[in-house]
Amino acid sequence: MTQSKGKLLYEGKAKKVYEVPGNAELVWIEYKNDLTAFNAQKRGSFDGKGRINARITSLVYNYLKTKKVNTHLVSEPSETEMICRRLTIVPLEVVTRNRMAGSTAKKFGIEEGTRMERPLVEFYLKNDALGDPFVSDDQALMLKTVKAASELQELKAAALRINDALIPFFASTGLELIDFKLEFGRDSGNELILGDEISPDTCRLWDAKTGEKMDKDRFRRDLGNVQGTYENVLERLKNSTLTR
Amino acid sequence: MTQSKGKLLYEGKAKKVYEVPGNAELVWIEYKNDLTAFNAQKRGSFDGKGRINARITSLVYNYLKTKKVNTHLVSEPSETEMICRRLTIVPLEVVTRNRMAGSTAKKFGIEEGTRMERPLVEFYLKNDALGDPFVSDDQALMLKTVKAASELQELKAAALRINDALIPFFASTGLELIDFKLEFGRDSGNELILGDEISPDTCRLWDAKTGEKMDKDRFRRDLGNVQGTYENVLERLKNSTLTR
Repeated sequence: MTQSKGKLLYEGKAKKVYEVPGNAELVWIEYKNDLTAFNAQKRGSFDGKGRINARITSLVYNYLKTKKVNTHLVSEPSETEMICRRLTIVPLEVVTRNRMAGSTAKKFGIEEGTRMERPLVEFYLKNDALGDPFVSDDQALMLKTVKAASELQELKAAALRINDALIPFFASTGLELIDFKLEFGRDSGNELILGDEISPDTCRLWDAKTGEKMDKDRFRRDLGNVQGTYENVLERLKNSTLTR
Repeated sequence: MTQSKGKLLYEGKAKKVYEVPGNAELVWIEYKNDLTAFNAQKRGSFDGKGRINARITSLVYNYLKTKKVNTHLVSEPSETEMICRRLTIVPLEVVTRNRMAGSTAKKFGIEEGTRMERPLVEFYLKNDALGDPFVSDDQALMLKTVKAASELQELKAAALRINDALIPFFASTGLELIDFKLEFGRDSGNELILGDEISPDTCRLWDAKTGEKMDKDRFRRDLGNVQGTYENVLERLKNSTLTR
């Protein structure tokens, strides 16, 4: 059966989401070449970016499946596209930090690179108009992003379990996982499923030997060689003994 | 025995804290006439402000004592001074909200005055240099503001209990308690004690009939009649049937 995209449901900063004709349980996701930062105040793009992030996400999600993590990835009709389970998204970005970096480091006056005693999980409200504000558990409940505090604990546990899986995965390619952002949703059976993507757009990855930044901070901070870095991360993951 | 102040220990934005000679378990607190807002970027003062806030805090804390709340207030050597138990301060500002107002309302795009389904308790790191940033429970733990998550639950429970006591207290004077900030500490026996002050500097109080702002927002937002408003709050509390 040849499948094709249906109606455009949603266009985000880095992806377009379409219906899958005749199947309301699936969506068709197309990765774009656009790159944005600071709540889309900074914009860029490069050829191949959509393909690279789709390939990286594919390698990561297929690896996570071997670790019994439920992801939305179903199949890959092209190098820039994924057919995924359609989820009711939990409107929280779930950020896990192994070392301090970025906005949280600045907020607390902690030097970038400081290792956490234990991984820290943070929630940010998914709301572009409000600038995705950081929220406490009590605020996340007050805003009805979830129905009960137990769901926040479930999200934290899922993020920490994925972190435990991703650290050795990236380490096998000479990359240290500094922090990363996840998005989750629930399928029609109310099961919690990992959605969105895992790529240099959504992780901080530092070269384990040199400390070189191998992620979107190259774009955010004008460090140069953005495209080459993303390609390098893809090549490393392709060659990992853990992706075979 | 005539007591007198000892060495200045600390000068804050609205108070000076001195030793009590010969008693390491106590401090001598002097209320200043200064008024600051927005992390001291806006400054003002008026004659009698220290006296008014000391008198209001005294009425509130003596009322809370009747409700079995442990406060640091021991005695009052003058109208602008208090002798208080010396505490090891928990470096968190504990904010309780009954209606949305101020920075949190703005952050979430919620109209000021929106009533919460249940009171919301928030923690802010007590750190002027960092601008007292909002923190989640996990961040408060990471920053070692407390030793265990159970202490954060203890702080929240104390704040909610005090809220339950303060709402009818202020209502008896025709004021609605919108939100308020508390600071806690532990005495040498590790007991949790309410410190700092409760006054129009640390609460939002709205006239229950007219909705008029009767607190530091008159200063923050240049609404005028700051001094008259503070005096009016003191007069109302003095005349409450609950302060007799």
